[in-house]
Amino acid sequence: MRTSACGEHPAPARPESRTDADAGPPVAPSHGTLTPLRLDEVRLTSGFWADRQRINRENTLAHCEQWMERLGWIANFDATAEALAHGTRGEHRGANFADSEIYKLLEAMAWEAHRGDDPETDRRFTALVERVAAAQHPDGYLNTCYGRPGRPERYSDLAWGHELYCAGHLIQAAVARARTRGADEPLVTVARRVADHLYAEFGPDGRDAVCGHPEIETALVELYRVTGEERHLTLAGLFVDRRGTGTLPPIQFGAAYFQDDIPVRDATVLRGHAVRALYLSAGAVDVGVETDDRSLLDAVETQWDTTVARRTYLTGGMGSHHLDESFGADYALPPDRAYSETCAGIASVMLSWRLLLATGRTRYADLIERTLFNVVATSPRADGRAFFYANTLHQRTEGRVPAEDEVSTSAGASLRPPWYGVSCCPTNVARTLASIAGYVATRDAEGVQIHQYTPCDIRTTLDDGTVIDLKVDTSYPRGRCIAIRVRTAGRFALTLRVPHWAQGKAVLDDGGTRRHLDEATVTVRREFAEGETLRLDLDLTPRFTTVDDQIDAVRGCVAVESGPLVLCAESVDLPDDLDLEDLRVDFSVAPRPHPEGASIRIRPRAEPVAWSDRWGPYGSPMYRHDAAARPDMAAPDGGKAAGRTAEDDGGDQTSEAAADARWILLRPYHRWAHRGPSTMRVWLPVR
Amino acid sequence: MRTSACGEHPAPARPESRTDADAGPPVAPSHGTLTPLRLDEVRLTSGFWADRQRINRENTLAHCEQWMERLGWIANFDATAEALAHGTRGEHRGANFADSEIYKLLEAMAWEAHRGDDPETDRRFTALVERVAAAQHPDGYLNTCYGRPGRPERYSDLAWGHELYCAGHLIQAAVARARTRGADEPLVTVARRVADHLYAEFGPDGRDAVCGHPEIETALVELYRVTGEERHLTLAGLFVDRRGTGTLPPIQFGAAYFQDDIPVRDATVLRGHAVRALYLSAGAVDVGVETDDRSLLDAVETQWDTTVARRTYLTGGMGSHHLDESFGADYALPPDRAYSETCAGIASVMLSWRLLLATGRTRYADLIERTLFNVVATSPRADGRAFFYANTLHQRTEGRVPAEDEVSTSAGASLRPPWYGVSCCPTNVARTLASIAGYVATRDAEGVQIHQYTPCDIRTTLDDGTVIDLKVDTSYPRGRCIAIRVRTAGRFALTLRVPHWAQGKAVLDDGGTRRHLDEATVTVRREFAEGETLRLDLDLTPRFTTVDDQIDAVRGCVAVESGPLVLCAESVDLPDDLDLEDLRVDFSVAPRPHPEGASIRIRPRAEPVAWSDRWGPYGSPMYRHDAAARPDMAAPDGGKAAGRTAEDDGGDQTSEAAADARWILLRPYHRWAHRGPSTMRVWLPVR
Repeated sequence: MRTSACGEHPAPARPESRTDADAGPPVAPSHGTLTPLRLDEVRLTSGFWADRQRINRENTLAHCEQWMERLGWIANFDATAEALAHGTRGEHRGANFADSEIYKLLEAMAWEAHRGDDPETDRRFTALVERVAAAQHPDGYLNTCYGRPGRPERYSDLAWGHELYCAGHLIQAAVARARTRGADEPLVTVARRVADHLYAEFGPDGRDAVCGHPEIETALVELYRVTGEERHLTLAGLFVDRRGTGTLPPIQFGAAYFQDDIPVRDATVLRGHAVRALYLSAGAVDVGVETDDRSLLDAVETQWDTTVARRTYLTGGMGSHHLDESFGADYALPPDRAYSETCAGIASVMLSWRLLLATGRTRYADLIERTLFNVVATSPRADGRAFFYANTLHQRTEGRVPAEDEVSTSAGASLRPPWYGVSCCPTNVARTLASIAGYVATRDAEGVQIHQYTPCDIRTTLDDGTVIDLKVDTSYPRGRCIAIRVRTAGRFALTLRVPHWAQGKAVLDDGGTRRHLDEATVTVRREFAEGETLRLDLDLTPRFTTVDDQIDAVRGCVAVESGPLVLCAESVDLPDDLDLEDLRVDFSVAPRPHPEGASIRIRPRAEPVAWSDRWGPYGSPMYRHDAAARPDMAAPDGGKAAGRTAEDDGGDQTSEAAADARWILLRPYHRWAHRGPSTMRVWLPVR
Repeated sequence: MRTSACGEHPAPARPESRTDADAGPPVAPSHGTLTPLRLDEVRLTSGFWADRQRINRENTLAHCEQWMERLGWIANFDATAEALAHGTRGEHRGANFADSEIYKLLEAMAWEAHRGDDPETDRRFTALVERVAAAQHPDGYLNTCYGRPGRPERYSDLAWGHELYCAGHLIQAAVARARTRGADEPLVTVARRVADHLYAEFGPDGRDAVCGHPEIETALVELYRVTGEERHLTLAGLFVDRRGTGTLPPIQFGAAYFQDDIPVRDATVLRGHAVRALYLSAGAVDVGVETDDRSLLDAVETQWDTTVARRTYLTGGMGSHHLDESFGADYALPPDRAYSETCAGIASVMLSWRLLLATGRTRYADLIERTLFNVVATSPRADGRAFFYANTLHQRTEGRVPAEDEVSTSAGASLRPPWYGVSCCPTNVARTLASIAGYVATRDAEGVQIHQYTPCDIRTTLDDGTVIDLKVDTSYPRGRCIAIRVRTAGRFALTLRVPHWAQGKAVLDDGGTRRHLDEATVTVRREFAEGETLRLDLDLTPRFTTVDDQIDAVRGCVAVESGPLVLCAESVDLPDDLDLEDLRVDFSVAPRPHPEGASIRIRPRAEPVAWSDRWGPYGSPMYRHDAAARPDMAAPDGGKAAGRTAEDDGGDQTSEAAADARWILLRPYHRWAHRGPSTMRVWLPVR
């Protein structure tokens, strides 16, 4: 229960788990303010994310593999192998970046094969890698869409061909395998040969070019972290520095679409295609960290600040344009045309995580939490077999339920389809959920920092040999208490993030001493005894969130949040006589806690005016002229200019007895459209 | 001057003009409530539209022809003729609907060759028609993109191929020529052969199919009106009735994109691609009128009502989605992502004009005026050599000046480019301006109705032989007076439209008797003496226009209009210390007249809050939580919920002395971006 007192949740039993490997983290900088914990140092035991990991393993991995087999995307590798062996011409199925979906699935399988208890995943991984490896050219090149008989030449379309993008995802899959099974794995060998080929082709003595879709940059730095080969880092740095110098040809959407308009170091805000911008930024941070290039890190931090302050949805979603999947202008954040692509949410987590490790600033962890709960968790259907691609904040019309065998051609589907013609999101969700434990906690010289609260076991050893062994129990974000039990005595520092919305109200119960928390973190630095428990209480009372006056699209609206969860109103929760579009929030009454989310008091909007030939453009009731001079027309300031007062609108606004006041239920946004066709709003107009 | 008294404008001299032909109107229904005047019955003499007609003739026609010659779109006809004669394979340049641009230019030339004083236009028309005619297949088929060696088969891609769409524009060009030079013209013969071919291919014994882009429907009815051939009307009716029965294949955007989701008779609102929806509706009205099918007309009237009440921008612009150029959901009208395609504005005028003729309802003429001044007039640059394709209502960032030899690949250009890869708008503007006199007035059994006010000569003969000869003088919409001089004595009825915004304030001075006008029209029915003048006074005092509470994207905003003109604020008019996005309108003070538009009182928005790690999601100043409990945060209701009063915001709101109050200039929207890069807003937030 949301309002339960701290500590009443029984600790769930620790599941059987494997401890056979020394699994590296999803991102492994050689240095930084914070050190990520390895995946074998943080194990989710139950709760929100463990449930999703289970569904990911049980359903999503096979779902993705079956779809890609059915559509012939995996067979593209067989056709390429055949072409290499016998010079045959074979067709290519799917988008020119279909290879990357197999690679993202491989990355998900790699993390999962380590984490999970299902030996099947390892077998399937190995079988897929064999087919991939067979398609590699003798010189290391590997792409099923280009460079074989009947297909376009290699690198003949750097703007749109996605060849280096695909190579990047191949390398990331190999890095995941290296960190969970070791660097001698076949996929790692394949990836190293790809990287060597790329160095010869695009390195210091190669062509002055970049790929239209960034991704190779972060992948190469991660491979460098696995192999120690300097040339991978060198090439990544070259790609970062070449971007923005105009090496790509002009395209319809302008050079900003693939960030070729301004060098990374000179840009002040993210722009263009959101996923591209975020992947590039992640790569730039990786390069900046490994080369100790503070100016590069500073540039990306500035871009993050500006982007989050002006170009980010309340959910953490990024990118508002459907046409080119891009960031819009500052403050152009229409909820009903929010693109907020799932992959952009994942890319944002990747970027914020890197910045958190480099700098230790908690705002990055705050945005990660927001984005995980409200974008990443929104995408998959409860069974993990259908996905949102775009994540709108306002659905005006009920969508159609897609058929289970239907490939969606539109990213803007209003109910989760099982697969897409461009299906980047399902495999991206899969690899993120499989490795999500990697984002929970970090360590430094003194101790451990917990950034995300979910039931888990954390066990790590500091550089001085201190063992820290913690068990986190919580039903967060449904429940407000996080209990952290120390299982091995020792002297260390335990740092807990206090989310922005809890600062000033959060309480830490440290062995009976209650501390009120006003800052973004709290650190307990002392000798801990075995078995003692710290309890962090985060106030989840639902709250109104208002919005900067600059965001035209939601002016005069409020949202309701509870803890890290953005809530929403759905038509399926409304009584028959209420239309979602007609609701107006009574902002004078605070939202009330509800086991499913929150209740808010609403009143129907004023009666719509009727069509008239007498006034309004062409008689339309939509626009009205001379409102100030006509007291019968609604004025945008609530009627003040027309001499009206609040009393005219219904008297005592705080009275529960207002004749038309009603209470409606809001639920977590990430669960919307789980109950069939529905309309939905995050931002609700104020009466 | 806007506020000048009625009658002070000297009557401009009547230019030399040709009277050699009996030019039919752009649309010629066989019957209806109102009868359109022929183009030789209404001649624009000076003023807003005559100026634009002159620029169209002098600059735009040659501009379009030169671009299409340069890009090889006209040469596609030569290549097709060559292929027909010698079986050669030739390439095709431009989009698969490039033919239609030549046809729309031909239509513009046909109207202009009649109207204008430039014999060059007739010569160029004839030369182009020769090249077009040479590309016609022996069986009447005519399309340069399909059905010749090296090109796809005829009708192999009905969803996207645009073959019947192109044929429709060819027919409309021929209709224009028939109405200005007679039905024996070579282009008319070409069009009749095309129509006969289409009847064989798609008629009652042909295939059950429609084109993905409507246009052929209205064209065939118009051809029927020229030729009297029933089969043209029959085929048009078939195309209207087949639409919505699912004969087209599934596409990414859904069947609604090309209106194949619901039969025309069953639909209640326009949806999908805006130009397609409007062209189809125009064709449906034409079919309904000629077949006396009241139910079909009723269906389109209902769709118009709903669309205008819920899916139309203040400018009259239609279509809000960039992705698929479509209408959005009800009330989804973001100003900053307004697509509002120029061609959709033209198509809207075509539809409303047909409904006006059929029903006589003035609301259609009101929307025509609004759309002509605020969409159609917005598209061309002052010299008629560059054009907006999309017409946004809010430009957040300054655009780039396109080069004069640059083909724009993006419809969303923020400054008018000279040409587009998909260049439907320039030739559409050209044909509309060349025939715009056709939308000024109509007649019925009793007299004449004037719908649009512009300096012109109107001379027509009623069915009973009564000659009506009028001279309209006005500087409208800059000046408020329209003087109508009767040049031939007679007994008849003169009906004048009173625009919606003038009702209740308009005055008719009828020979010294002043009548206050409260209704949408005023009719003077009496014996008129030669030389007498009626004066209509339309109050152009600038006014605030408010907006229905359902339109999320402009909630809390007002627009300012003056007469039929939507005004806008442009950054180039602001002092250096004011940012357009920071302006907040003081709604308590009425806009003031200004020779260039209007002045409004504004105050800068409240100081933006600063970034803080203490509150707001991830420290962002964009979203703020717990506003109700924190008086330091702006509340969306102006602070009432937080206990603040208006006085806290700066005291007496009506005082001119408010320290931060300023006056800024708004100008007509249609002239925006005429002075180089600029940001712009139509809807301005209220303080």
